[in-house]
Amino acid sequence: MRTRAAVALEAGKPLEIMEVNLEGPRAGEVLVEIKATGLCHTDEFTRSGDDPEGIFPAILGHEGAGVVIEVGEGVTSLEVGDHVIPLYTPECRECDYCLNPKTNLCQSIRSTQGAGLLPDGSTRFSMLDGTPIHHYMGCSTFANHTVVPEIALAKVRKDAPFDKICYIGCGVTTGIGAVINTAKVEIGSTAVVFGLGGIGLNVIQGLRMAGADQIVGVDLNDGKEEMGRHFGMTDFVNPSKVDGDIVAHLVELTGGGADYSFDATGNVNVMRQALECAHKGWGESIIIGVAPAGAEISTRPFQLVTGRVWRGTAFGGASGRTDVPKIVDWYMDGKIEIDPMITHKLSLDQINEGFELMHKGESIRAVVEF
Amino acid sequence: MRTRAAVALEAGKPLEIMEVNLEGPRAGEVLVEIKATGLCHTDEFTRSGDDPEGIFPAILGHEGAGVVIEVGEGVTSLEVGDHVIPLYTPECRECDYCLNPKTNLCQSIRSTQGAGLLPDGSTRFSMLDGTPIHHYMGCSTFANHTVVPEIALAKVRKDAPFDKICYIGCGVTTGIGAVINTAKVEIGSTAVVFGLGGIGLNVIQGLRMAGADQIVGVDLNDGKEEMGRHFGMTDFVNPSKVDGDIVAHLVELTGGGADYSFDATGNVNVMRQALECAHKGWGESIIIGVAPAGAEISTRPFQLVTGRVWRGTAFGGASGRTDVPKIVDWYMDGKIEIDPMITHKLSLDQINEGFELMHKGESIRAVVEF
Repeated sequence: MRTRAAVALEAGKPLEIMEVNLEGPRAGEVLVEIKATGLCHTDEFTRSGDDPEGIFPAILGHEGAGVVIEVGEGVTSLEVGDHVIPLYTPECRECDYCLNPKTNLCQSIRSTQGAGLLPDGSTRFSMLDGTPIHHYMGCSTFANHTVVPEIALAKVRKDAPFDKICYIGCGVTTGIGAVINTAKVEIGSTAVVFGLGGIGLNVIQGLRMAGADQIVGVDLNDGKEEMGRHFGMTDFVNPSKVDGDIVAHLVELTGGGADYSFDATGNVNVMRQALECAHKGWGESIIIGVAPAGAEISTRPFQLVTGRVWRGTAFGGASGRTDVPKIVDWYMDGKIEIDPMITHKLSLDQINEGFELMHKGESIRAVVEF
Repeated sequence: MRTRAAVALEAGKPLEIMEVNLEGPRAGEVLVEIKATGLCHTDEFTRSGDDPEGIFPAILGHEGAGVVIEVGEGVTSLEVGDHVIPLYTPECRECDYCLNPKTNLCQSIRSTQGAGLLPDGSTRFSMLDGTPIHHYMGCSTFANHTVVPEIALAKVRKDAPFDKICYIGCGVTTGIGAVINTAKVEIGSTAVVFGLGGIGLNVIQGLRMAGADQIVGVDLNDGKEEMGRHFGMTDFVNPSKVDGDIVAHLVELTGGGADYSFDATGNVNVMRQALECAHKGWGESIIIGVAPAGAEISTRPFQLVTGRVWRGTAFGGASGRTDVPKIVDWYMDGKIEIDPMITHKLSLDQINEGFELMHKGESIRAVVEF
């Protein structure tokens, strides 16, 4: 079949909207009509050429929602008409990682996914001249139709709006999951969140759900304060307006340090501040942001020897097929909010404008609707 | 009263054996006759002048065992004749830290202890000319008698030999506790231990107690292999004899990485190797060693985002008054071994020879008996 897609032809260039060929699903695969997709910084990281592992040409996008159109041989957990969210972290429920409750990093299709291929080592997308187009993070949601392995699709309820729940495919789950699955924040905790973009706001609403008593948001942009408070932030700190050391300021503000701190900036210096503002004896700091290639985090080991713990999280520690449907329920039940974070709606033709909005800091999330 | 002590008069000089004045215990304090004390690298770190927080003159030593001679006003948990192990990490059971099960870092007397003073801000030791001599880590076990706060003394059974259980005052508890309290190693785990000195050997026997399946020891000195195997090590690796990357070698040897890794070297480059040989998705690395002043650990944040956890431990996460008596029982019951690690016995007059043995790598633990 043919479908319309925004194709990343080469690093650093705008995406090109074009007709592409799409083969039907092979064994274990599912053809999905994408109804909506968010634009995430990770897509931009690859589009821009900053991602050393970026492969071109490719169809980017990993934060989508849609409807099953056709299932391949042997697919048993999904049928035509099911509503689904593609998962860049699959859940095969059979590998050593899926069977270990300490991790969500299913490895069953890791090598082909990283190479921009489906599990059998080939692509379903191609140019009209036959040139293969690579998949991206196993999802490729910047296309009106895509083919995804069955194990990388979360089945969700049919009454949930695609233009909101697509965000659960990455940002919402990453932020809330970091709180619930990775940090396992307890009621009454004190927390500091660095970076009040889309991920940071979801960390904040995760902390509110978890019953944190104090939720400090840190951002260089005062314009972020209002939205932060809307989602549950109790204190706002703009480091550019703090006299002296930001770490000492946060330790004082939290009465000795944060029980939990979160980096949602991707800046390695901020990651260090996040660790060092954690409470002596028990504070845990969780890295969510993606750092530039080659960047390193540092600290004095004394910070750890005196009881701080340094962790990271990917996809919020969520096992997607199991956890994503629950988060969709939380949204539909009003336990979490998504609507205020979807600040811009675009057509596929306008997708490059979405990246411009991201760079200007004007959007929290721009969503493309098909 | 007067007692004999090894006094650190100034940084970098040998200790001087001399008579010193010792005042009796004030309220909440206890006079202890030290029967035996181990010599630890931390004592040498301060003696040598490498410790930027070192204070002189001082009576060093923090790994002792002895008998209660006199109790000060208000002391209720100890009486004359009790056998005790001084605790450089006290356990007041009242501060925010003691009441938080996530930490053992009682802060109730932290500031005075760090300043070489007892909790009322004064010293009990002085030169015969009246010059005050500082306490060290709240213990000062390089003296035949010392005064210690009640909350910094673990009461232990009377049939346990002082010249062995003194080692539980630091090295044994630090190593075994890192496994049991900090890492919480599960039966069947895979572990890598860097550095097969006294701490590393105790980590190894802690891992054996915890039921680890594979216990890899890493040391540059082949002479450490035999003792490592005696305490439960299953595999020995000498990095100088490995072709290529030591991390890749250890990941392969452990079938994908260690569930738990431990640094018992104090070398920040080794701390990085320890983290990076931990298993993707769930491996935890625990820093035990004390790094040189100002040294920093580094890694790519991707190591944490893909599921590794970086922790540290002090005094093995043990709450001394509660946990040390149990470890003495384990020794007396044959669950752990100490005797082979006490490689040298010295008199107080020979204490400087003990530091020489440490530098030559000839001793695991040298113990001074009074």
